[in-house]
Amino acid sequence: MQAEIIVVGSEMLTPYRQDTNSLHLTARLNDLGVTVAFKTIVGDSLQQLTGAARTALTRADIIIFSGGLGPTEDDLTREAAAAALGLPLLSDPTILESLERRFAARNIVMSPNNRKQADVIEGFTVLNNSNGSAPGQFIETTHNGQRRLVLLLPGPPSELKPLFDQVAKPLLAAALPPSFLARRTLRMALIPESLVDARTAPIYQRFADIETTILAGRGEIQLHFASTKPTLAEAQARVDEVVSLIEAEMQDDIFSSRGESLEEIVLLMLGMRHLTLAVAESCSGGLIAERLTEVPGSSRTFLGGAVVYTDALKTTFANVPADLIATHGAVSEPVVRALAEGIRTRTGASIGISVTGLAGPTPGTGADAGKPIGRVYVALADGQQTRAKELNLFGDRERIRWWASQQALELLRRTLL
Amino acid sequence: MQAEIIVVGSEMLTPYRQDTNSLHLTARLNDLGVTVAFKTIVGDSLQQLTGAARTALTRADIIIFSGGLGPTEDDLTREAAAAALGLPLLSDPTILESLERRFAARNIVMSPNNRKQADVIEGFTVLNNSNGSAPGQFIETTHNGQRRLVLLLPGPPSELKPLFDQVAKPLLAAALPPSFLARRTLRMALIPESLVDARTAPIYQRFADIETTILAGRGEIQLHFASTKPTLAEAQARVDEVVSLIEAEMQDDIFSSRGESLEEIVLLMLGMRHLTLAVAESCSGGLIAERLTEVPGSSRTFLGGAVVYTDALKTTFANVPADLIATHGAVSEPVVRALAEGIRTRTGASIGISVTGLAGPTPGTGADAGKPIGRVYVALADGQQTRAKELNLFGDRERIRWWASQQALELLRRTLL
Repeated sequence: MQAEIIVVGSEMLTPYRQDTNSLHLTARLNDLGVTVAFKTIVGDSLQQLTGAARTALTRADIIIFSGGLGPTEDDLTREAAAAALGLPLLSDPTILESLERRFAARNIVMSPNNRKQADVIEGFTVLNNSNGSAPGQFIETTHNGQRRLVLLLPGPPSELKPLFDQVAKPLLAAALPPSFLARRTLRMALIPESLVDARTAPIYQRFADIETTILAGRGEIQLHFASTKPTLAEAQARVDEVVSLIEAEMQDDIFSSRGESLEEIVLLMLGMRHLTLAVAESCSGGLIAERLTEVPGSSRTFLGGAVVYTDALKTTFANVPADLIATHGAVSEPVVRALAEGIRTRTGASIGISVTGLAGPTPGTGADAGKPIGRVYVALADGQQTRAKELNLFGDRERIRWWASQQALELLRRTLL
Repeated sequence: MQAEIIVVGSEMLTPYRQDTNSLHLTARLNDLGVTVAFKTIVGDSLQQLTGAARTALTRADIIIFSGGLGPTEDDLTREAAAAALGLPLLSDPTILESLERRFAARNIVMSPNNRKQADVIEGFTVLNNSNGSAPGQFIETTHNGQRRLVLLLPGPPSELKPLFDQVAKPLLAAALPPSFLARRTLRMALIPESLVDARTAPIYQRFADIETTILAGRGEIQLHFASTKPTLAEAQARVDEVVSLIEAEMQDDIFSSRGESLEEIVLLMLGMRHLTLAVAESCSGGLIAERLTEVPGSSRTFLGGAVVYTDALKTTFANVPADLIATHGAVSEPVVRALAEGIRTRTGASIGISVTGLAGPTPGTGADAGKPIGRVYVALADGQQTRAKELNLFGDRERIRWWASQQALELLRRTLL
């Protein structure tokens, strides 16, 4: 079964905004064994939207509209879908009454425009929207001799997601042959995609019934596996099988096999060993702390740390001797080691990690003059030994900072293994 | 003139990945006075892609393909566009030679598949791609009696963007009537969208020739204005006119009128006043430091600070008396004040800002027990006075942390005004 998602709204055709509803819908449709074959993004024009709906009816089994169900004259999804299907729009007295109650409860006079939201395409089932005023609509019908499932959903993600998951998805599931999808995701840090592919392709290519997606970016490789079978147990067993073989091949290069982030994994490893962590960040400027504290419950193992952007603060907050900085420069291995050791001592953490480097575009000064942009040092001190690493990263400031944080977290993970 | 962008690639129809090329293309097409009327995302299927190309030729003046120009059998954009236009594909000896040279230079044997990349649709101009092996292709043609501009671009953003900007855009510009677009963006923090709209709509609605887009999210409202005129001076004057009127209405609520971020603006204001800044962050966990240090050159005014996630570190790094925390709880106005004052003293900065709060989902403990999730305090100390603010934010951890950072930066901006 193939679906087309039609995203409605002129704002989605500007340089500023992008549809995200379709990603949510795609994941849920995949769960039902449905592939998304087309996404169409179209503006608030009755002619263009009706045309897009007609095209979709010729090429997809399931057509889902996202947006255009509001009360303004720009909201034209009901009209366009009705026109494409050749069906009339009828005002639904139950919806009208509920709209009137909604407005009365807020002491607002309902404008005539709002009556549009009570229009239902003949034969469609009304899907009650508990998070907004526009209900969804659904039909299983025959169009030009072809079976078609058509679904209209409101555009705001806070309305679309629960309405699809709780109301529309069960209706679609009932109309489709039973099918079960199981997924697994393996994540790896700081390994070239080509290397991962060379080592894993000979394995996953033997599983023709498993859909494999490799995503690479920001210092991470993700391998996504999906299997669709008549029972969930079969689907699960099949993805578990490919995952086991790839785990055996890639071993410790894999940091998570259930989708967890690198931050979550290091916090989990620290927690299991009853260890605490502190960070001293120069060029990453708080990014490592920010990534770690984004994880709920991180306060159990992460104590905090310092953003030591100036040389003086490296001394104030992490005991780095001023003459060490004067001699070697702030961007140096002796300083990154002292930073990791110092932040550990000052905070009383089990482990201290540190980053210093040149993220650019401003070049280094003083003892750091002449060092290339992208030169970064990361270090880890655990009270027994201090490990440091020199990196030469490329790209812009944002990329260098991100990779520096990724390198520090991966150094921590490898140390904890 | 209306364009359709066809994004090619099955990976763009998964839940994991989203096209971003179309945002870049849309901004550049708008510059040329071209509106994007449709975006279609389609997988690596010859039949579906040819169908999508045929549909686009019926409804858009300009059709731009993004992706599907690689050497694998899944790369089918050349074949599909040729089929939809009813034109043959011809192997271009110049491209073939350059491909062979490329492979020879790397000492790799060129596989027969790679020969595909030398196929050019009859009559198309080859667009030399200096960042990859797949050249772009362009034609100005007549199809079923309609004038059509058709452009094929490689999918990787690092290839598509320079190829479009440097090679394709001038060709399109030459084929289109001269048109100049000027843009201005006004940004405001922490004001409800409805309030901004109530105050500004009466102004911008008088400019029927200006396209106004309001974007709201993450504690910020953006007003985008675009004007298209026969000369750039006219277009610029027109957007400047609406911007002046809206600036007069919204005054200091506007933090930037040239598109700068809130972080950039506060750093600029600090720099102009020769002031330095330090931060002490509890629940925001480094987010404020991270946002500030993302700005190039921030080291001139931002000294650094501390992520004081535990109570002990609030004392160690920001001199907060332990009994103050024991009495009022870490999430309290006395503590946020002491934090701002303490981080200022410890770092020697002109201004200290601080954040403490409950970002959830874990509830407060000790003296903070019973305080609601979302209770956040921000403060600013400048040595003369300390200003503090109690906030009651809603939403998830990520949202509460972001809004807390936004509130702290806006408190800083308002103080510096």
